Amino acid sequence: MNKGLFITFEGADGCGKSTQLNLLAEYLTQKGFEVIVTREPGAKGLGENIREILLNYNGEVSDRCESFLFLADRAQHIDTIINPAVETGKILLCDRHTDSTIAYQGYGRQLPIDRIKMLNEIAVNGRYPDLTFVFDIDVDTSMQRVGKNKDRMESAGKDFFNRVRQGYLDIAKQNPQRVKIIDASKSIEQIHKTVIELFEQLLLKQHQ
Amino acid sequence: MNKGLFITFEGADGCGKSTQLNLLAEYLTQKGFEVIVTREPGAKGLGENIREILLNYNGEVSDRCESFLFLADRAQHIDTIINPAVETGKILLCDRHTDSTIAYQGYGRQLPIDRIKMLNEIAVNGRYPDLTFVFDIDVDTSMQRVGKNKDRMESAGKDFFNRVRQGYLDIAKQNPQRVKIIDASKSIEQIHKTVIELFEQLLLKQHQ
Repeated sequence: MNKGLFITFEGADGCGKSTQLNLLAEYLTQKGFEVIVTREPGAKGLGENIREILLNYNGEVSDRCESFLFLADRAQHIDTIINPAVETGKILLCDRHTDSTIAYQGYGRQLPIDRIKMLNEIAVNGRYPDLTFVFDIDVDTSMQRVGKNKDRMESAGKDFFNRVRQGYLDIAKQNPQRVKIIDASKSIEQIHKTVIELFEQLLLKQHQ
Repeated sequence: MNKGLFITFEGADGCGKSTQLNLLAEYLTQKGFEVIVTREPGAKGLGENIREILLNYNGEVSDRCESFLFLADRAQHIDTIINPAVETGKILLCDRHTDSTIAYQGYGRQLPIDRIKMLNEIAVNGRYPDLTFVFDIDVDTSMQRVGKNKDRMESAGKDFFNRVRQGYLDIAKQNPQRVKIIDASKSIEQIHKTVIELFEQLLLKQHQ
């Protein structure tokens, strides 16, 4: 494989996306693929400093500041981690990316979506995921799973997360080729099987 | 005075802008004004964390990431410090702002200027300085003043700073009402006198 793959895992906190990402990484590594696991916000390096601010800063963070920090993290991630990996044939699995910004900032915080998309295009600089999994789960279940261990983002409330969920569903409707919705209420094993099937469909498509 | 003033101090490192800012702050405080001194990047609070990354991060920081970090810092600064101060009648003196971004990112790093201006407009959200001092100095003198104590920004080289200087001169040409160029090769006392004169002209204009 000359060109690698860029695959993103999306959904509300507590949807199980990180578990599924790790399971797929393990599976692909055993199959002999070169796999890189990363995340947003806060990929290795400078991203960790930005993640620290986004999740744990104690004072007021203005909404517009938060958006730009996500974009800074994304630009750095694309330029120094994602592009080098995909260009050298690796499979890069990323925990949250572009669609999180649209779902959380646009739908959740209700900032102007057209502007978010435009800013996001500057940050990704032409690099879009080859495949995106959205792990869909109702808000009560996701809140329950996250429990009391909430950080600044998670304490935004139920209305916020209902809007975020709707955002992901809209994104999937608008990008049916790239974005696949997965019912996250199923068992870990069932979901893992679906993830592998969708990954293999992508591989087949790439070799056609 | 119902509405405060937002005054920015711009120019290359070593141009003496911070000295002049402090002298004006002292002068205005003695005259009984309520003065707030701040800076970009890295105003009090979250801005300090961002400044730390911008100036001292050891690894690679991509150009696009750097731009977004400046914008995050600016949005936070506008929303949580500058607007509250100006809206309550204070005089806010700011060490670097909008024009630094255009001069350093646009002219210095040669990123697309139209895009920088557009992003900047989002970050400032309608708040522009009432008065901007550009302390103009030739690059050899400013390099000499800064000496060996260079951080990541200052080690960018002489061509870079020649372009930055040209950027400031262009900005002044395009905004003659707001931006005043000051010959920074003169003595501290002479420059301070000019700064006060220009400030008083602004006050007069405000009361006309």
